[in-house]
Amino acid sequence: MNEVIETILNHRSLRHFEDMPLTEEQIKTIVSCAQSASTSSFIQAYSIIGVKDKAKKKKLAEIAGNQEYVEINGHFFIFCADLNRHSIIGEMVQTDVTPSIESTEKFMVALIDASLAAQNAAIAAESMGLGICYIGGIRNNLEEVKKLLKTPERVIPLFGLTVGVPTKLTDIKPRLPFEHIYHEDEYEQDKQVYISQLQKYDDFISSYYDERTEGKRKDRWSEQMAKMLDRKSRMYMKEFVQKNKLDLK
Amino acid sequence: MNEVIETILNHRSLRHFEDMPLTEEQIKTIVSCAQSASTSSFIQAYSIIGVKDKAKKKKLAEIAGNQEYVEINGHFFIFCADLNRHSIIGEMVQTDVTPSIESTEKFMVALIDASLAAQNAAIAAESMGLGICYIGGIRNNLEEVKKLLKTPERVIPLFGLTVGVPTKLTDIKPRLPFEHIYHEDEYEQDKQVYISQLQKYDDFISSYYDERTEGKRKDRWSEQMAKMLDRKSRMYMKEFVQKNKLDLK
Repeated sequence: MNEVIETILNHRSLRHFEDMPLTEEQIKTIVSCAQSASTSSFIQAYSIIGVKDKAKKKKLAEIAGNQEYVEINGHFFIFCADLNRHSIIGEMVQTDVTPSIESTEKFMVALIDASLAAQNAAIAAESMGLGICYIGGIRNNLEEVKKLLKTPERVIPLFGLTVGVPTKLTDIKPRLPFEHIYHEDEYEQDKQVYISQLQKYDDFISSYYDERTEGKRKDRWSEQMAKMLDRKSRMYMKEFVQKNKLDLK
Repeated sequence: MNEVIETILNHRSLRHFEDMPLTEEQIKTIVSCAQSASTSSFIQAYSIIGVKDKAKKKKLAEIAGNQEYVEINGHFFIFCADLNRHSIIGEMVQTDVTPSIESTEKFMVALIDASLAAQNAAIAAESMGLGICYIGGIRNNLEEVKKLLKTPERVIPLFGLTVGVPTKLTDIKPRLPFEHIYHEDEYEQDKQVYISQLQKYDDFISSYYDERTEGKRKDRWSEQMAKMLDRKSRMYMKEFVQKNKLDLK
């Protein structure tokens, strides 16, 4: 196993950091790594906003559900899907790029581009001995995030990435079984096989929690998911995205 | 610079591979790395389909615009946004998860999840000395891809990842300037600054092509982008996604 694969497999989300800023060099390395990711037809449809301002970080931590590690860390990056750049290019080159930019296809491209870049940033940070945690919680209130970061139309802040020197380690969480996530030549056609894989995983997750909490917690993954999905969270998203003139048609 | 950062910064998309299949162990390592990526609230909303069947690969290569490297490679992975799993969980646990699953928020989550996983797979493959290329071209005709891979509702094949032993290297393509992609505390408010950064990059890209093609090609990035976005490509996507019961509300 090489150093890269070791770093990748060793990932766990960390949520306690020293209050010690990354150096400018560390930030530049992480952003360069993000930019090295593949990008659909070289479109580079994302932006990264690094938040240093303490008041803004505090506010973002509140939005994300009072998560202290959004406020106290080495650096807080926010990854945005960004087609504003391409809208401006349309003006520069006098080409009507609007129908393209407003399509669901390009919305997907921008989301994928931003996410590939973010994962490179995450791996790079972890390879430097830093801990990371993605912060989807900023999507609790994107109107507010948008005001804080002054993002224009066609820019959607997608998630944060908090990075820093970890003060507390967590365990690696076991993922779905290989044969459930990975199909060959076609998607699993037998629903019973599919369900039994989920049940096997449920048992495994349940005993994983059981062991780690001395019997206090034994929840199954499918129950966790059903509970989470039973809450209709962030149902304003479609309206928000379309108000920002993306994913319209 | 450590080995991980070196691997990441050394990325270039490769499009010529030996016709030599990856080993099962290589495939398992790559998929394990994909699975190690962060996932929103542990939702794991993606699937990976590895295509080995030669006839299917040939067909996928045609769909992707007659790209030979989709057919001839070490392995062809397809990454899918997948909320079918969670729909089945809803039935298993008897919880109405439908409004949640059909929301734009969860569509975004699935896209982000699949993309984070894919980028881990890409970096892992590259660390093993293999070359990779993302294949967005499968989105040229997702109805056809869906039939080939027999994916159910709530599953959207997003992109392929072709992996293999490279037979021809390409250059690393220079990305947008750091100060244009990376903002601090707020998005760049001065449009003139933003435009002048783009123009500087345009000049740079133009001389990059000029040098590499002995003057045959001098196109600027903004012109490339305007030309690409002037074509309304894959405008069926919204209808396709909604027909598959995602991104509905």
